[in-house]
Amino acid sequence: MDAQPLYQRLADHYRRAIQSGVLAPAERMPSVRSLVRTHRVSLSTALQACRQLEDDGLIEARPRSGYFVRPRHRAGMLPAQEPDLKQPLDPASYVGIHDRVSDFIAQCERHATSVDLGLASASPAHYPADALKQAMIRTLRGQPDILVKRVPPLGHPELRSVLARRALDLGMNLAPDEIVVTHGCIEALNLALRAVARPGDTVAVESPVYFGLLQVLESLGMRALEVPTSPQRGLSVDALELAMQTHPHLRAVVVVPNFQNPLGCVMPDTEKARLVTLCERHQVALIEDDTYGMLCDDNQPQPAVKSWDRTGNVIYCASMHKTLAPGMRLGWMTGGRWSSRIAMLKFAQSRPNEPLAQAAVAEYMGSKAYDRHLARLRRQLKAQRELLAEAIARHFPAGTRLNVPEGSMLLWIEMPGQRSSMQVFEQALSQGIRIAPGIMFSNSDRYSHFLRLSCGSAHTPELAQAVRTLGGIVAAADEKRSGVTN
Amino acid sequence: MDAQPLYQRLADHYRRAIQSGVLAPAERMPSVRSLVRTHRVSLSTALQACRQLEDDGLIEARPRSGYFVRPRHRAGMLPAQEPDLKQPLDPASYVGIHDRVSDFIAQCERHATSVDLGLASASPAHYPADALKQAMIRTLRGQPDILVKRVPPLGHPELRSVLARRALDLGMNLAPDEIVVTHGCIEALNLALRAVARPGDTVAVESPVYFGLLQVLESLGMRALEVPTSPQRGLSVDALELAMQTHPHLRAVVVVPNFQNPLGCVMPDTEKARLVTLCERHQVALIEDDTYGMLCDDNQPQPAVKSWDRTGNVIYCASMHKTLAPGMRLGWMTGGRWSSRIAMLKFAQSRPNEPLAQAAVAEYMGSKAYDRHLARLRRQLKAQRELLAEAIARHFPAGTRLNVPEGSMLLWIEMPGQRSSMQVFEQALSQGIRIAPGIMFSNSDRYSHFLRLSCGSAHTPELAQAVRTLGGIVAAADEKRSGVTN
Repeated sequence: MDAQPLYQRLADHYRRAIQSGVLAPAERMPSVRSLVRTHRVSLSTALQACRQLEDDGLIEARPRSGYFVRPRHRAGMLPAQEPDLKQPLDPASYVGIHDRVSDFIAQCERHATSVDLGLASASPAHYPADALKQAMIRTLRGQPDILVKRVPPLGHPELRSVLARRALDLGMNLAPDEIVVTHGCIEALNLALRAVARPGDTVAVESPVYFGLLQVLESLGMRALEVPTSPQRGLSVDALELAMQTHPHLRAVVVVPNFQNPLGCVMPDTEKARLVTLCERHQVALIEDDTYGMLCDDNQPQPAVKSWDRTGNVIYCASMHKTLAPGMRLGWMTGGRWSSRIAMLKFAQSRPNEPLAQAAVAEYMGSKAYDRHLARLRRQLKAQRELLAEAIARHFPAGTRLNVPEGSMLLWIEMPGQRSSMQVFEQALSQGIRIAPGIMFSNSDRYSHFLRLSCGSAHTPELAQAVRTLGGIVAAADEKRSGVTN
Repeated sequence: MDAQPLYQRLADHYRRAIQSGVLAPAERMPSVRSLVRTHRVSLSTALQACRQLEDDGLIEARPRSGYFVRPRHRAGMLPAQEPDLKQPLDPASYVGIHDRVSDFIAQCERHATSVDLGLASASPAHYPADALKQAMIRTLRGQPDILVKRVPPLGHPELRSVLARRALDLGMNLAPDEIVVTHGCIEALNLALRAVARPGDTVAVESPVYFGLLQVLESLGMRALEVPTSPQRGLSVDALELAMQTHPHLRAVVVVPNFQNPLGCVMPDTEKARLVTLCERHQVALIEDDTYGMLCDDNQPQPAVKSWDRTGNVIYCASMHKTLAPGMRLGWMTGGRWSSRIAMLKFAQSRPNEPLAQAAVAEYMGSKAYDRHLARLRRQLKAQRELLAEAIARHFPAGTRLNVPEGSMLLWIEMPGQRSSMQVFEQALSQGIRIAPGIMFSNSDRYSHFLRLSCGSAHTPELAQAVRTLGGIVAAADEKRSGVTN
């Protein structure tokens, strides 16, 4: 009898098919059911074989679609590692993230950038500049007093109506007057955090997480408790549950459930539901940042965590600057049981937003043109993401790990050999290439050998050359502890 | 020998001239020097006579211009009383001003308003809606990417340049990159306070003071220490000095030196200089809100307190929504020695302002059209203020006290007999007239028998009728302690 377990033989069978090209890159694997039927194996054997191939980097699972052969260059490239759920959690009170960010911005300003892979936004050409301009001009002509009359409270009525209607697609049932329009998602997060917590309080966040959130916490004098987060499944609800036991005074959790920044992961529905229940049970406020949720490849937005909320314990925050207009800084929120406190804080912090931008965006977001824009943006981002991922796989050194998400614009890269992201960042910048070093995504140094690249720009020959250059910089960078991460 | 002192005889002489109409309302009194010459009295006698006439409400002093005969109906109407410098100072930690304001707003929303005397803003017709609209459209056409490209940090370069140039008129010498553009003056005050103080800290403010500032302090968890403020000379620097001794942990002073809200007073230059020196000496941050400074009757803006600052201890905040465009919510600030902390807080609180409004306003504020607009607005406000003051003098009950400032749009009225401003407010509102009750301008009940009226709207027959109605409501209101304030 063959010493090799059955699942390994099955996996080898398909490994050869992939390596010989019989199964082409991006082709769909036979489904688990058909493996069971064809090879007369048990369901668990078929599943084990698939997982083996996935672990080997040959195929990849796509939610709701099954397994696919990974593109050629990415075959053999491993996905990002799962976090260590037992990593110690340590809420820093003053974390100095702003110094890191200031230093980053200052360095960027000293160098001319020819290729920007650092910005978590698509390039201007991806947004409907002309249609928005026309909507603005129509609004100015139709409402000649709009710049000089008093600003209506909490948000423009038409925009709030459009947002409430659009929120239905995300599983939320909101009345327009439950919506507060804000200066971007960042202001919404400020208001949410100020509504539920005070300086000195501890707030759980994903790890890694975008530096903007860490800056908000730092500026409000709150402590960030970084909770392990899976590059595949998002925030670990198990780790959070543990954290709630060890940190009984946790006041809030901030989560980016859809296309998390920087990981790009989406929390499965079951985990979203568990998260809502867990926070409710422990009376910990749950703040959802859904900045990227609309940028799904498949035109079917992921449900908001808020859609599982039955008690008002979830505050939902979102923005239009990644999906519609980076130059307009519009965001919105719905405050659950903190609504009246949030309304007060918005009034005291910056007064209601000015009406012109809101009226123009209401017109555009209420039209079919907005749906067409979203579909086009999603297609573009998906195509650019695949090209960027392929280029990374081709040009980065062996041992590089990469997750390729199914939406939005961010790729999270683990460099082999503990190479320093700051070293790579500085060398790339000196050649006109801007990236986001991993060190900016935590108050710890845990991600100092990661990079975040954005596929927000068209994959021009110049951009392709920049990725090649970047791969060379990474390959030549000093290895701190060779082989540790492989 | 006549028992009557010389100065009283001199005063009586001019009293008769005024009462007989020989000296007409609004006519200039002979100067003090000419009184000395004409009547061969000493300087101090001439001055005493003038003060006597002023105390009797027959003439009024105008800074840099001398004494003028008060308008007919206002003759005999006393100016607002000087504050009691020995009043106990009591910083409330949670003051509940937001409840008062929320209640005020909710009541206003329940009633249709036909005449708004409550809003501290001019009506839309007073602002250059068309010119701003055209500037917006030109900007949209000239910079087609402006809505979709990344927002420049800290403020639009051209607007910062224009603001720096305009600040020269206020005695400030600023580099454009020392200026941060904000979402209105309210955001600027939030950032200034967050930069210099923490929750629980005590901040000195004028008393009375506009409720927006008290709300900001409440929402930031800071304590307001209300310092006596003269309706003629603004914040009492003597009282502040005393407060610094009794409250050694005072972290900041917020002052509205020019056309204070609600008093309308301007601090004399000597007091501004003393204030800067005092705060420097005690290492207490000085935050200046100059929202109304540009609305001076004489086209010569009062100098900013900041113009005396040599050590960076003054943070200057201002806005464009009273002077230029209530619907645009633009403000700006310069942070002195807290500049880098303010830049960080602005980035973390709401990111830089969107560029469109800034670019359009930069174009307009850089042109002569802006000067022409300001001159027109100042003339209109002055004329409307005189008419409103006359109407108050005619229709309000005897014993009403009123100060008529020389700029901006606010009139501060002390009702005789401790009448309740809330009662008057509610009765007026039921007749479609909106006013601001005095109770909103302090955390105490000290001003519960005051009203703030705005002359921001054209003095139409409907408005004149509203003042008559209001006078009737005040006259009929219950007197709490009759005669106490006379």
